[in-house]
Amino acid sequence: MARLQLEDLKQYAKEHMPGAIEILKEYLRLPTISAQNTAIPETVAFVVNMVREAGGEAQVLDGLGGNPVVYSFFPAGEGGDSEKTLLFYNHYDVQPPEPLEEWHSDPFNPVITDGILFARGVADNKGDLVARLAAIKVLQKAEGGLPCNIKFLIEGEEEIGSPNLAPYLEQYKDLFAADACIWEFGGKDAEERINMVAGIKGMAYLELTCIGAEIDMHSSVGAYVDNAAWRLVQALATMRNERNEILVEGFYDGMIPPTEEELEAVRALPFNEEGTAALYGLKRPLITAAKGEDPREAMVFHPTMTICGMVSGYTGEGSKTVLPKSAKAKIDCRLVPGQDPDHILQCVERHLEKHGFHDVKATSLNGQKAYRSDYSHPFIQHVVATANDVYEAGCVLAPNSAGTGPMFIFGELLQLPIVSTGVGWVKSKAHAPNESIRLEDFEQGIVHMAHMLAGFPEALKLAAEKVEA
Amino acid sequence: MARLQLEDLKQYAKEHMPGAIEILKEYLRLPTISAQNTAIPETVAFVVNMVREAGGEAQVLDGLGGNPVVYSFFPAGEGGDSEKTLLFYNHYDVQPPEPLEEWHSDPFNPVITDGILFARGVADNKGDLVARLAAIKVLQKAEGGLPCNIKFLIEGEEEIGSPNLAPYLEQYKDLFAADACIWEFGGKDAEERINMVAGIKGMAYLELTCIGAEIDMHSSVGAYVDNAAWRLVQALATMRNERNEILVEGFYDGMIPPTEEELEAVRALPFNEEGTAALYGLKRPLITAAKGEDPREAMVFHPTMTICGMVSGYTGEGSKTVLPKSAKAKIDCRLVPGQDPDHILQCVERHLEKHGFHDVKATSLNGQKAYRSDYSHPFIQHVVATANDVYEAGCVLAPNSAGTGPMFIFGELLQLPIVSTGVGWVKSKAHAPNESIRLEDFEQGIVHMAHMLAGFPEALKLAAEKVEA
Repeated sequence: MARLQLEDLKQYAKEHMPGAIEILKEYLRLPTISAQNTAIPETVAFVVNMVREAGGEAQVLDGLGGNPVVYSFFPAGEGGDSEKTLLFYNHYDVQPPEPLEEWHSDPFNPVITDGILFARGVADNKGDLVARLAAIKVLQKAEGGLPCNIKFLIEGEEEIGSPNLAPYLEQYKDLFAADACIWEFGGKDAEERINMVAGIKGMAYLELTCIGAEIDMHSSVGAYVDNAAWRLVQALATMRNERNEILVEGFYDGMIPPTEEELEAVRALPFNEEGTAALYGLKRPLITAAKGEDPREAMVFHPTMTICGMVSGYTGEGSKTVLPKSAKAKIDCRLVPGQDPDHILQCVERHLEKHGFHDVKATSLNGQKAYRSDYSHPFIQHVVATANDVYEAGCVLAPNSAGTGPMFIFGELLQLPIVSTGVGWVKSKAHAPNESIRLEDFEQGIVHMAHMLAGFPEALKLAAEKVEA
Repeated sequence: MARLQLEDLKQYAKEHMPGAIEILKEYLRLPTISAQNTAIPETVAFVVNMVREAGGEAQVLDGLGGNPVVYSFFPAGEGGDSEKTLLFYNHYDVQPPEPLEEWHSDPFNPVITDGILFARGVADNKGDLVARLAAIKVLQKAEGGLPCNIKFLIEGEEEIGSPNLAPYLEQYKDLFAADACIWEFGGKDAEERINMVAGIKGMAYLELTCIGAEIDMHSSVGAYVDNAAWRLVQALATMRNERNEILVEGFYDGMIPPTEEELEAVRALPFNEEGTAALYGLKRPLITAAKGEDPREAMVFHPTMTICGMVSGYTGEGSKTVLPKSAKAKIDCRLVPGQDPDHILQCVERHLEKHGFHDVKATSLNGQKAYRSDYSHPFIQHVVATANDVYEAGCVLAPNSAGTGPMFIFGELLQLPIVSTGVGWVKSKAHAPNESIRLEDFEQGIVHMAHMLAGFPEALKLAAEKVEA
């Protein structure tokens, strides 16, 4: 019976594909770059229309700071379980498209080549939202109504660290109440398994700035005038060594060590070292190799300190003999459960003072704590089981991702299990030029979400019975 | 008699000012950025017209690589000494104008405010060329002809290190033959003294590049993927310490130590530490202070290693969580006599290898040796004496400048004494936004060059008699 139903869902998903692709392409044409504050109102209006076109209620929540949050609600249909609610978390903003010269096509003019759709935000996260709305349409067509209530929280500041999400969640806590949550992202690995996570790393995103003078100077004065770029380089060099060990005192404070069970789960994760090297075109061995570390453990359990960008002085072609007045670096620390981004900032400030870099100032651009769901919750098992039904190569579930999102505030406030899955693939290049998804993965994502929703009330009932027993 | 003549020259210079300013403004509208290869042919044509309009012959030398060199010749007039020749060295190219947002006016649309003319290249070096041509017109008007032959070498690649000048000088050695040379630049210090130099530092301008991968990556992979920006930072940190000491083995090789006479001359130079700090808006003490060094000695006799620019990953507003595929730094080493830029590059390459930075590649963008004239030559004394006649606050002559130019190849090939002087002032901001000259300094520069030229044959005759005696 479930088998038969799955075949129906696949058939209906196929029929919905052309329409869903058209909607997605239109959505992708909006350059919704939160870091640059572009196209926000247009995108909010577009999202509201998409929800309403799919038969849902939409409400724009605004006025608590930052970009609006779109709340949407689809009630359970006749025969469905109106006591059970699934919440989808998505975001409508995207990363900046730079460096533009490396795109093979305009990042905001989606193109399809050999079944691959290229555009900024298609994998992260516009494709997932459109697939989820398509899954709702498929269920409505296949079953005449929805098996449970479905809610969406669609925010517009995920790519800058969701700095204003907490007040919205707190204010509208009852509106967003649900039994479980599907998070925004996911995709297939090099072996075509769908990769899902039940948690997320946190983040402390810092900007380090050194101002040495009020004007750029002729570089000949370097004989007696100090240099902001050298100051920043020397400050950075004290913060992390070549073995990827972070030398800032207190950085590792509070880290909750993984349980033996979590460690085992991570050691069972697939990881293709050669595939990773080939995918990115790496010029050096993995940095874990020098220390004999397991890259999977590093990915899930180790915090990081990454230079995401730095700039000083003249960066154009040829030579300009200038002594720059200032230098700036952007540093992204991925945190694990127990670490606190505010504490990280304080530790970096103390470190700079202690090492004599009073002229290098650290400011926080984004701080988020890490989160891990209870790995053994029946909802999580249900998502895994339905993924195994839909995806031929099966699925893989990690205790937490290497990436970041505002999962901590959801988990703390709404008290629900969370799994993240999505329609990406191994070459999706989220945050990089030529971001893409494959249309076949997009279609499978629609099927998985419809199939998961169809059995959702039943899975939760089993969970409740288990608790009562 | 000389006194009277000087007053005449001043009067004629004043009369020539409006015309000279118009020519200069037109010249400054050409964005002749050699590093970006813009407006070269238009500027060459403009320079040729300027020379011809002043009554000189002009010849465009081309075909030996790089931008054309303009040669120009003004013969001695009746009653002048046609056996004596003075050579002016100038360049028609300018530095890139970036950062554009810091200019108060368009860098290529000259504006005059309170007697100050703002534009890219006005101090370095377009203003000097126009002043020298105006001095020739003044002499022609005041004396009915020129006191000696006058030649110009006006090149178009000084701001990128004159990489193609040597072949032109070698090929046209006889054309450029002269008894003495006035170099391109100079200006007044905070005490209004005209600062001149009889030599110049050399340069090794290097670009350091680290490529870590073929694409930018999501920063979450920082747990196991090495980072080009960190690699470059760590490589740079091994090359120079916080005390401005260069740690690259062999960097100081071959340095010719200053003579006691040169040291004394430098110790007698004015240097206003507070004025320097205020001029640039420095946020920290001079880097010489920590070691108790004399900044004047550092300026003239110490080689430097300056980060002129660095860039990696995302450098825009806000946060982008990317692990950059590459990182780049531009490094400018100012060299003293005896140092060799090719040797410097080799030392840096060896240093990077030795410290394990096989992935950081150094390439040379510009290499020039340093030069010092014979400080006691009568021509040099003549330039000083005439400067003292013209400039109320007097003049200062250093054995060599802190800046760089292709003086070494002139000195080696043409065997002549060289002094550099010009129309800049203490706030000229060469190479920086809001570059400027004061019109009164421009006028005095015209007078000084005319006055210097008027007495030039006599000064050289005295020198020859001295040698014979």
